[in-house]
Amino acid sequence: MPPPRSHAFITFEGGEGAGKTTQLARLQRRLEQAGCKVLATREPGGTPMGARIREMLLHGLDADQRLSSFGEALLYSLDRVEHLEQIVRPALQAGKYVLCDRFADSTLAYQGHAAGEQAKIEALNRLVVDETWPDLTFILDVPVPAALARAQARSQKASWYDRREAAFHETLRQAFRQIAADNPARCALIQADAGVEEVGRQVEQICRQRLGVALP
Amino acid sequence: MPPPRSHAFITFEGGEGAGKTTQLARLQRRLEQAGCKVLATREPGGTPMGARIREMLLHGLDADQRLSSFGEALLYSLDRVEHLEQIVRPALQAGKYVLCDRFADSTLAYQGHAAGEQAKIEALNRLVVDETWPDLTFILDVPVPAALARAQARSQKASWYDRREAAFHETLRQAFRQIAADNPARCALIQADAGVEEVGRQVEQICRQRLGVALP
Repeated sequence: MPPPRSHAFITFEGGEGAGKTTQLARLQRRLEQAGCKVLATREPGGTPMGARIREMLLHGLDADQRLSSFGEALLYSLDRVEHLEQIVRPALQAGKYVLCDRFADSTLAYQGHAAGEQAKIEALNRLVVDETWPDLTFILDVPVPAALARAQARSQKASWYDRREAAFHETLRQAFRQIAADNPARCALIQADAGVEEVGRQVEQICRQRLGVALP
Repeated sequence: MPPPRSHAFITFEGGEGAGKTTQLARLQRRLEQAGCKVLATREPGGTPMGARIREMLLHGLDADQRLSSFGEALLYSLDRVEHLEQIVRPALQAGKYVLCDRFADSTLAYQGHAAGEQAKIEALNRLVVDETWPDLTFILDVPVPAALARAQARSQKASWYDRREAAFHETLRQAFRQIAADNPARCALIQADAGVEEVGRQVEQICRQRLGVALP
């Protein structure tokens, strides 16, 4: 077990309905109970600029402003650069645990793998993330039918992604699994179709093992 | 002299007040007189998305949305990706001469050289421009005091860049000269502090020599 850290950058990744937001909130509570300072954030949307970008991307541009996949990746990257600079790095420097709902792996999966532009988005991510790669990334893996059922139950207002077909979601699922396989030191692949508490206990155990966090 | 081309991508680069827009319009007239099909365009602003981006960048974001240099570069790149896809490549495929007022070299000069992030912006430009580098780039070089006098005479409403100090403009001038030196096959450095007609004749002569354009 490594020595305990005073801060860490932890991201949650996976497709729609994988339970990212739920598990992030649960880990936040557990870390705070253990006396850690925690900042919970998300992409896109963690900055004022990001909130505008999130609205544009998730709820649509005018028809004449529909972006290419690489254009989308650049807009997410713009949000990421500002989010890292204004929110994430200052919080890490202040000794906090930063928990982020989606990060560069989502851009690689959605705008890279799913669009056949994996190498281009990997190169873009390296420029954008620079030295601030997460210390730990949870990739929450759920079979597509179960994930879509969760996503649809959660929200009457399905986002653009939710409405895409199952084959697209299967491509995404395989992309996230590939990202976990390609980055074993940073990523932990979690079978997330168990109950919230069972998945949460796995998340905690990995935090203890990899980051030395003293969770009771 | 190379065989004449049915189409070509030609960009005009340089600091404020270098005469890019004037020379572009002059070359457009001369090419059209010679029977060429011409599309004149600019960055940012060549697409509906680009027009929004241009307004944001040149006339300011809210104070809490001021971007980092790399963030600016990403926003210009987003405009560029869409502009290339929607405007430039289709026009080239239709056999037109595309004349563009500013392109990737401006991002390299303003957000790269001037911000000390040259390598990062060069890498970004390679991803964004991909296979569509200009066939010919005119880099219009004017001593800074003369260029600023021109820029100020031209417009009551100085843009954000015009208001920066002379040292910044000198850095930019040297950046553009370096870009010309680094890319001799693509770029032509033109001493642009002569009169419009004299500079225009140099531009035409280089089009004849490098692209085989039959300008009378």
